Amino acid sequence: MLVVGRRRREEIMFTPRTPRIVAARRLQRRRDRDQSRRFLAEGPQAVREALAAGAVIELFGTPAALDRHAELTAQAPEVSPVTDEALAALTETVSPQGLVAVCEQGDVSIGEALAKNPRLIAVVAEIRDPGNAGTVLRTADAAGAGAVIFAGDAVDPYNGKCVRSSAGSLFHVDVVRAPLSVVDLLQDNGLQVLATSGAGEDDVDSLLDGGQLAARTAWLFGSEAHGLPHEVLKAADRRVRVPIYGGAESLNLAAAAAVCLYASARAQR
Amino acid sequence: MLVVGRRRREEIMFTPRTPRIVAARRLQRRRDRDQSRRFLAEGPQAVREALAAGAVIELFGTPAALDRHAELTAQAPEVSPVTDEALAALTETVSPQGLVAVCEQGDVSIGEALAKNPRLIAVVAEIRDPGNAGTVLRTADAAGAGAVIFAGDAVDPYNGKCVRSSAGSLFHVDVVRAPLSVVDLLQDNGLQVLATSGAGEDDVDSLLDGGQLAARTAWLFGSEAHGLPHEVLKAADRRVRVPIYGGAESLNLAAAAAVCLYASARAQR
Repeated sequence: MLVVGRRRREEIMFTPRTPRIVAARRLQRRRDRDQSRRFLAEGPQAVREALAAGAVIELFGTPAALDRHAELTAQAPEVSPVTDEALAALTETVSPQGLVAVCEQGDVSIGEALAKNPRLIAVVAEIRDPGNAGTVLRTADAAGAGAVIFAGDAVDPYNGKCVRSSAGSLFHVDVVRAPLSVVDLLQDNGLQVLATSGAGEDDVDSLLDGGQLAARTAWLFGSEAHGLPHEVLKAADRRVRVPIYGGAESLNLAAAAAVCLYASARAQR
Repeated sequence: MLVVGRRRREEIMFTPRTPRIVAARRLQRRRDRDQSRRFLAEGPQAVREALAAGAVIELFGTPAALDRHAELTAQAPEVSPVTDEALAALTETVSPQGLVAVCEQGDVSIGEALAKNPRLIAVVAEIRDPGNAGTVLRTADAAGAGAVIFAGDAVDPYNGKCVRSSAGSLFHVDVVRAPLSVVDLLQDNGLQVLATSGAGEDDVDSLLDGGQLAARTAWLFGSEAHGLPHEVLKAADRRVRVPIYGGAESLNLAAAAAVCLYASARAQR
């Protein structure tokens, strides 16, 4: 027998078993993200940036979070209240602050990115650690880079941890996916290609002193464990190290990328 | 009845229940580290740096690892082979590569550190995240800082994750624990104190242009979530921001520290 009447609020909330929640949850898997060209952005900061970029397809939130962030709720094309359980099923962090958006992937082709003549580009080559890749993306954005290229067998830029580490920067710069041979295209386009390497023959401070960093530049970063692939090191115009003034053997990737990208930003001001 | 005879190798290896393993394992807790003034360093790189610093009291390793790293084994004052289970009990990482050393804590007083007249100091003020604190320590070492001060309610520098993130730098620079009032002492000692803040009135590039970074400098870094405590911001000589050239709201701590410390290193070359 059906009970007809005013439905209570909980009854209209999505649960972990609601088909749209089940479908959204699949976006935690790369295969499903690749097929649908969608991904998840969690937390109010990421949702705000995604809305500003016009990337949000649907916003899920607990009733309390949707009330608390009414200015975001008002901008989303579709809003659905969800139970705490449904929210937990969609998010990967311990405290996602009640909001998750299904977003459209916005990466562009290398041609589109180069058509804007960016003066500064970061390339994450075969970096598989999503936290590192997202941090480089954030740092490149802060330093004023126009594009970040995920080259070769790099992590998916729409991986949840990469999205979180980018702290919204995924929505600010042109994100490009390309094979490692993108280095040739960058050079053909008039960019100098600088490969970071602890054993580089140039150091970033000397290049800054010598005025070489004022030119349009693409910086290549490799994984902390393996560095850049040999063919990429060879194809670059220069192999550049960050000078080590103390006893440390090396810098971690986030620190090295910050020093290199900000040296270029300084030279290009 | 006792079986007397030649003992097999496994019988002389330490197990998780061997008293010295039980005692060493307690060093994973801050209270026990504070009381004993000891800590654990895991993996061949950290053990190598600890040996070079004369900090190793005892080296534990699986027989295979002790053989593989014979040059380290030869330098340790005491070496004990342990079972895989004992090693796993002592380490916090998934692949510790078979070696763990019990080390003596080597932090010095602020007076000892200042007596060497360091030109560059990093202060991690109330930073509770061990990975962030260890990364700042590593970056400060790379930039040539003479001391890193853990100020106020900061993480224990000998926390396992902090030791790992420092990648050996814990053994290269003077590590100091001090209250937040250390800022006064630094100023009395002739160091300019620069507090990093997203809302700082100066930016690091302008200070570098203006020559202000050539002076002896202590950089203060706060937690990513809360920044620096109000009284510390107020006590500093300047509040300095890293310029943001793109759409990012901020940099993460490792990146901001790298930009600031390397700007000083550049000015002080």
